[in-house]
Amino acid sequence: MPLAQIDLPRALFEEKATAIGLELQAAFVEAAGVPPADKFQIFRPREAGELVFDPSYGGVDRQNLIVVQILMVHHHPVDQKRALYRAIVERFVKLGIRKEDILIAVTENGFEDWYGGKLYGE
Amino acid sequence: MPLAQIDLPRALFEEKATAIGLELQAAFVEAAGVPPADKFQIFRPREAGELVFDPSYGGVDRQNLIVVQILMVHHHPVDQKRALYRAIVERFVKLGIRKEDILIAVTENGFEDWYGGKLYGE
Amino acid sequence: MPLAQIDLPRALFEEKATAIGLELQAAFVEAAGVPPADKFQIFRPREAGELVFDPSYGGVDRQNLIVVQILMVHHHPVDQKRALYRAIVERFVKLGIRKEDILIAVTENGFEDWYGGKLYGE
Repeated sequence: MPLAQIDLPRALFEEKATAIGLELQAAFVEAAGVPPADKFQIFRPREAGELVFDPSYGGVDRQNLIVVQILMVHHHPVDQKRALYRAIVERFVKLGIRKEDILIAVTENGFEDWYGGKLYGE
Repeated sequence: MPLAQIDLPRALFEEKATAIGLELQAAFVEAAGVPPADKFQIFRPREAGELVFDPSYGGVDRQNLIVVQILMVHHHPVDQKRALYRAIVERFVKLGIRKEDILIAVTENGFEDWYGGKLYGE
Repeated sequence: MPLAQIDLPRALFEEKATAIGLELQAAFVEAAGVPPADKFQIFRPREAGELVFDPSYGGVDRQNLIVVQILMVHHHPVDQKRALYRAIVERFVKLGIRKEDILIAVTENGFEDWYGGKLYGE
């Protein structure tokens, strides 16, 4: 159960949220072995002044930040994480999102840290 | 200091946020030994299209997702976590929330990862 | 790449978000050795009823909560974290924010848990 939380400019949300959600999930399936139906996404459209960033940190030309936070169980090796980032970036680029504008951050927990609609043992 | 973050449909927020907050805290007290006054909750009402999920993943009939993220110190054994989920679910069900519609995700940190209104040593 | 997420009352956001962002980043630079341009902040203004807390937990007189969540790589020793909290609190106090009203929570991940605008190896 990866949980994706996407903070993004409202204009981008209005225009492309459905496609972003589909491509993000496709990247999870393709690169991280997540079942297609294991899909939980929270979109949080942001107004002007709510997403604050440096436009050039790391030698990257940032213009219109989209932040993808992923909470998932700790069992993906580093190579798989890198493949996941690559898949997300490639798919977002096809939607017209600049790769420089993407920030991805992963946080990990354990299998026992989830309740997904039914209790343990049910 | 558990910090609860609740992303939920706006209609559910408008109708039941106060009761949800009270029951959530009661579950922490009852199942996880949290002091009643140790209460920090962020409600984030979501509009149509902002909560995206599969309606049947895991064999669960999901209709109207409410996401409860809990950030708390790593010192709760697995059995206590399961008791906490059970307590939250049972209490939310009494409010008319379907147990299938609840997603809970725990993230853990350490005691040193909190500042709660006074500095260390004060 | 610390990612800061700030949930705060809308009035405080409207009045002081720019200054809060600047002081928060200055605290990272001063106390945690973060490069000045390594700045990623999400502000989430909250309406009445969305920030729920006990006004006196821990013997603290809380009135108008501002929640600062920090996601950063696990490599800051405890003393540095405490210095960071102190720096944030001192700088926010200069902006007229009460130190009792601040809640800070740190979550940690690894270097491999970030994508910041360019892929590994590029």
